[in-house]
Amino acid sequence: MLRWLTAGESHGPELIAILEGLPSGIPVSVENIQTDLARRKLGYGRGARMKFEQDEVSLSGGIVHGFTLGSPVAIRVGNTEWPKWTEVMGAAPVEGDAKTTGRGAPLTRPRPGHADLVGMQKYGFDEARPILERASARETAARVALGAVARNFLAELGITLVSHTLSIGPVRVPEGSPLPRPSDVDTLDADPLRCFDPATSALMVAEVDDAHKEGDTLGGVVEVLAYGLPPGLGSHVHWDRRLDSQLAAALMGIQAIKGVEVGDGFLTTTRRGSRAHDELFEVDGEIGRSSDRAGGTEGGMSTGTVLRVRAGMKPIATVPHSLRTVDVQTGGAAAANHQRSDVCAVPAAGVVAEAMVALVLANAVQEKFGGDSVRETKRNLDSYLAAIPAS
Amino acid sequence: MLRWLTAGESHGPELIAILEGLPSGIPVSVENIQTDLARRKLGYGRGARMKFEQDEVSLSGGIVHGFTLGSPVAIRVGNTEWPKWTEVMGAAPVEGDAKTTGRGAPLTRPRPGHADLVGMQKYGFDEARPILERASARETAARVALGAVARNFLAELGITLVSHTLSIGPVRVPEGSPLPRPSDVDTLDADPLRCFDPATSALMVAEVDDAHKEGDTLGGVVEVLAYGLPPGLGSHVHWDRRLDSQLAAALMGIQAIKGVEVGDGFLTTTRRGSRAHDELFEVDGEIGRSSDRAGGTEGGMSTGTVLRVRAGMKPIATVPHSLRTVDVQTGGAAAANHQRSDVCAVPAAGVVAEAMVALVLANAVQEKFGGDSVRETKRNLDSYLAAIPAS
Amino acid sequence: MLRWLTAGESHGPELIAILEGLPSGIPVSVENIQTDLARRKLGYGRGARMKFEQDEVSLSGGIVHGFTLGSPVAIRVGNTEWPKWTEVMGAAPVEGDAKTTGRGAPLTRPRPGHADLVGMQKYGFDEARPILERASARETAARVALGAVARNFLAELGITLVSHTLSIGPVRVPEGSPLPRPSDVDTLDADPLRCFDPATSALMVAEVDDAHKEGDTLGGVVEVLAYGLPPGLGSHVHWDRRLDSQLAAALMGIQAIKGVEVGDGFLTTTRRGSRAHDELFEVDGEIGRSSDRAGGTEGGMSTGTVLRVRAGMKPIATVPHSLRTVDVQTGGAAAANHQRSDVCAVPAAGVVAEAMVALVLANAVQEKFGGDSVRETKRNLDSYLAAIPAS
Amino acid sequence: MLRWLTAGESHGPELIAILEGLPSGIPVSVENIQTDLARRKLGYGRGARMKFEQDEVSLSGGIVHGFTLGSPVAIRVGNTEWPKWTEVMGAAPVEGDAKTTGRGAPLTRPRPGHADLVGMQKYGFDEARPILERASARETAARVALGAVARNFLAELGITLVSHTLSIGPVRVPEGSPLPRPSDVDTLDADPLRCFDPATSALMVAEVDDAHKEGDTLGGVVEVLAYGLPPGLGSHVHWDRRLDSQLAAALMGIQAIKGVEVGDGFLTTTRRGSRAHDELFEVDGEIGRSSDRAGGTEGGMSTGTVLRVRAGMKPIATVPHSLRTVDVQTGGAAAANHQRSDVCAVPAAGVVAEAMVALVLANAVQEKFGGDSVRETKRNLDSYLAAIPAS
Repeated sequence: MLRWLTAGESHGPELIAILEGLPSGIPVSVENIQTDLARRKLGYGRGARMKFEQDEVSLSGGIVHGFTLGSPVAIRVGNTEWPKWTEVMGAAPVEGDAKTTGRGAPLTRPRPGHADLVGMQKYGFDEARPILERASARETAARVALGAVARNFLAELGITLVSHTLSIGPVRVPEGSPLPRPSDVDTLDADPLRCFDPATSALMVAEVDDAHKEGDTLGGVVEVLAYGLPPGLGSHVHWDRRLDSQLAAALMGIQAIKGVEVGDGFLTTTRRGSRAHDELFEVDGEIGRSSDRAGGTEGGMSTGTVLRVRAGMKPIATVPHSLRTVDVQTGGAAAANHQRSDVCAVPAAGVVAEAMVALVLANAVQEKFGGDSVRETKRNLDSYLAAIPAS
Repeated sequence: MLRWLTAGESHGPELIAILEGLPSGIPVSVENIQTDLARRKLGYGRGARMKFEQDEVSLSGGIVHGFTLGSPVAIRVGNTEWPKWTEVMGAAPVEGDAKTTGRGAPLTRPRPGHADLVGMQKYGFDEARPILERASARETAARVALGAVARNFLAELGITLVSHTLSIGPVRVPEGSPLPRPSDVDTLDADPLRCFDPATSALMVAEVDDAHKEGDTLGGVVEVLAYGLPPGLGSHVHWDRRLDSQLAAALMGIQAIKGVEVGDGFLTTTRRGSRAHDELFEVDGEIGRSSDRAGGTEGGMSTGTVLRVRAGMKPIATVPHSLRTVDVQTGGAAAANHQRSDVCAVPAAGVVAEAMVALVLANAVQEKFGGDSVRETKRNLDSYLAAIPAS
Repeated sequence: MLRWLTAGESHGPELIAILEGLPSGIPVSVENIQTDLARRKLGYGRGARMKFEQDEVSLSGGIVHGFTLGSPVAIRVGNTEWPKWTEVMGAAPVEGDAKTTGRGAPLTRPRPGHADLVGMQKYGFDEARPILERASARETAARVALGAVARNFLAELGITLVSHTLSIGPVRVPEGSPLPRPSDVDTLDADPLRCFDPATSALMVAEVDDAHKEGDTLGGVVEVLAYGLPPGLGSHVHWDRRLDSQLAAALMGIQAIKGVEVGDGFLTTTRRGSRAHDELFEVDGEIGRSSDRAGGTEGGMSTGTVLRVRAGMKPIATVPHSLRTVDVQTGGAAAANHQRSDVCAVPAAGVVAEAMVALVLANAVQEKFGGDSVRETKRNLDSYLAAIPAS
Repeated sequence: MLRWLTAGESHGPELIAILEGLPSGIPVSVENIQTDLARRKLGYGRGARMKFEQDEVSLSGGIVHGFTLGSPVAIRVGNTEWPKWTEVMGAAPVEGDAKTTGRGAPLTRPRPGHADLVGMQKYGFDEARPILERASARETAARVALGAVARNFLAELGITLVSHTLSIGPVRVPEGSPLPRPSDVDTLDADPLRCFDPATSALMVAEVDDAHKEGDTLGGVVEVLAYGLPPGLGSHVHWDRRLDSQLAAALMGIQAIKGVEVGDGFLTTTRRGSRAHDELFEVDGEIGRSSDRAGGTEGGMSTGTVLRVRAGMKPIATVPHSLRTVDVQTGGAAAANHQRSDVCAVPAAGVVAEAMVALVLANAVQEKFGGDSVRETKRNLDSYLAAIPAS
């Protein structure tokens, strides 16, 4: 079983992530992780922060000479802006003005659509800084860092992932468009919106421009695909062992995600049964499927075809033309606190979603195949595939 | 932390469920549970099994004289059809024909859209019986039984749930229709499709009739609402503590669910930020929200307004005009094994979804408020509400 | 990962146990389980209850035609005394005298050494019945039932267990006595105290007789041995993955256990380092150990030699000449409530300890080797053993 | 529920620890943590490493201006020796001699009593460096750092801990000696062996001197006491919720621990029941106990009296006069690899044991009382104590 925790605040010194349970022998480098962290900043419509904030990666444990040891992997992602925040966010007590003026001034106008108000209520604070610092999507950098490690593990087993943008606001890739493959990652990353359909991408750029002009923000939908999965990850025997359930939790656990689909998802609910499933055929002694409406799972298990899951992201809640709120100090109406923000972060959400899917799949692989070295896990996987009774 | 497990096969002697972690003092009766089990059989378009199968409930542990003890609650749901299945599904070895003929004949034509094929591959079987017996939605009766207990716990704290059908196939309740309240449960249960909009319900009935005539099946979307939640269930501090994430796992962990939404879900992804969130207002010294687009969560925590989550169910995969498959014994093309089935099980899915949401919320309440007796948990909840700084 | 829950009260209708996470293909029969349940009643010095109480075993899920399916295994252990307790312990509300007289009279004199008093405080009860019903060691029957299943799984992999009694009160098997092997189980079970040293056994019988005559009770120490383990179960990489840690939790989680040792345990703390460890030797191309002081673990992992763990049981706390207590109703001094009891339950504790160790080892095997059928798990184990670099 | 992970190798750049689940408002400073880390180095008989190795503590997350936020707490403990190890233990691949000579030379002579051999087998390495780096007790510094935070949380609730040394090798504090109280910590830390009995301490010093002269090592027994616990932490309702079980796992999960006791532990197994338990008395309207043989738990729950648990540590396995082993490269007999080491680390083990007990108790408090701020948790605790029916 993989276990992992992240820590760190948005304007704190660094993010920290630990991942426990991986086998030995997985190749990992700082560069791998930096590459994914850079991909997390992609996308037309991102704010200035993405440019001046650098992710300084260091590996604190679990990796020696380029490979995992089997011990917990620890990654730090430093915050280059930290020197500006040492007083406001320092661990040690501060005196005087640091808590009341400038960056340290109390944030008493909670932003709708954020954790601000309810977080203050739950944790007993009278301003939002102690909440928003952790609720910020900055934290996803830690997940992407761990996801890069999980992805390398999966790659050793022949499992590869890719994500792409399906929609930005109302602009959506036409149903039935070709799916990207892992080899298309560079092409996707070069697209302004990480959209695989160039015509739609152009419309998306226009939509972002329009929202920006209007002082507004946009959401959208991303899709993650995993190729090379064996059949039988997850299980039908208990609800929380269903791969779909675990994927849904992982994707809905990303900031701002409000919907999750496996395969054709809600579209499938409108189809009749005769046209909603993937029929089985024999091809050259193996069993194949006629379609991939199900998104690569049946009965809560991977079928061995392409896994396809989607996450729907709400528009960014920090709207330049601020939303109305209440000042908790005065009790009066106010404009919401404004933190620096983007018009649209959907392309980045795709990269975060990839990381979360990679972590879920790495865990599912470990559960099914065990193994404490990549060699052992791979040996177990191969012997399973060789022994499958029905293919 | 609540923990729970279910066991039992569809045609086995009984389903068994254990729920560990509840406080003492929750009122529970066999009748409570039977009521919810009967509701699980509701809905126009159900097959014959719903009629002749009786759910015999007995309480084996954790409840004395009508109240929980704080020890694990154990519930049995007996299968009245069991006498017909003792040979095919008995725990003891059998001799002779029982494994090869009649009900016991090997099911070698795996059904598309079911766990059959991949389950056989994963667990090493050459026929589907050992898989489909557990993958069957019959198992949800055990969850509904536990959900009834969780619901009683929540009711003691003033938290109540209701579910309704939003769509059947392409027929959908108009956006903006009024939401049902817990007091509407009887009205909903009396509706053929558990739909709160009578006009839409009539169209749904027609859709079911048409599908039945065509030998086809239907899916749809259900919505669960929870009233009376305190703010601050779940947490923004770690992805898997987000209430949304836990709800998504619970709903996607129900058989045949392919999509999950919180609040307006995917619709919200098409809106601009200025019209996608719930602005805050001061009303009589309390902070209120202008709308409920978010579905009652912000930053992964309940806000204290109505919680609203949705699950999208694919059409039933056992289609009367069987789907095409492969016979794993012969390797040749075949029609899928046919198990007795319904046209549409969406109304029942709403009841199952209620149970899953109740279990998630009961766990979230215990995590936030602790307590080993209902009295203690309620006292902790009340003192929290009295102390909330910003309301 | 194996997960399991038990439920049921001592005088309730039955105990229920569910075990989730086992592979398919494990042979299991009612007789297996009954055999271990009968062994749990062994031992000189047991009270009358052991004689008239019958354990009626039924298998409710997860097993068909003698083998596990891979789905959760559910076992019921019925209580033949239940008809006498239907009013006092029934799940439905009762009227009149049933709650105040006879068996139903409130137990307001909490017994020292039992959960009675603190359980009442924690769960908010004013008498001890709702606590002692669950705290009773009767619950261990559910664990022994699940342990029988775990043991069968381990046996398929060549791993076998045996337990024996090391001491009864002050009477102890001499240091350095031969260890029993799995083939000695029948001999052990035939011994009055499940002691492998006949001379010591005779002294133990005398000790029990003397305690009985004095109206007193006895504790002791049991040891569980596991043969045939592969090296590498558990892990050094995180404290809670250490096999020793998991074994300690499992043994200390048995009622009345106050001490746990691995290998020579506390004796080792008195030795100097040069005489406290197991030196390594090469024998016929394999690495062997000179001794087994460590009890078969190093660095929190099984070494492949015999695993040896011990549990120390306090004397039974229900002493015939009752201990002094306070009547919580009157506030005055009183003699403790007296529930029917034994002089000594140490031999039974050995059987329970076996079950707990079997469950821990089965989980450790699944974590290391994965697999969803016994065939797959065994294949993975065999290929690991063949590939071990250093033996 | 508290969750925590540690990462980092003994000669790596730093240890990292994350603790998730604490409430807001706990006072924490770098100095708190450094104090406990310095206490971990105490004790007569420690090697040179304790002197030149400095623990550089930094707080990376979860703490601002001296108090926890409720978000995960992250602590780094830097290794001042790291510059000497950058090649041997660096995360990046190295070329040439670094892997084969000097500090980087392969360790092919696994040390008996360590994780070396079985770790190599499990994780697939042909030398011990990748194993011993994580198996080293250096990792306990990360636990002590987290334990300091847990301890501060408990202190806010009036719960305080102290540990002391009961025995070094065969030298043991006489039965019935007075127990230290939290106010005795400075006195204890000033004693060479952290022993509360001066006469015994002098004998322990002589024992250490003798072992040092003989080129040998020593183990011993430590005891942790917790004062101020409320009754009802842990639970009797399921084995793994028993506080004893959780404490046993935590203590046995410390490197080199081979035995665990609650209260009088194994001594109690030799007593008769009439003299083994703690009788109950009424004193001024409250219920008191006549003794503390049980160590402060009954039925797996804290009773509200002093909690008392013990851990037995084997003698250090790296014996100056090396133990015999096998060189896995040549297959021939050899002397074990020698890593720098101490004669006796028992006093330090007491500090580590304190930390583990603090983490278990903090978790038990959160489970029982919930709360997301110290204020809320304390309010819930106080109202529970006020409402306890039987005291």
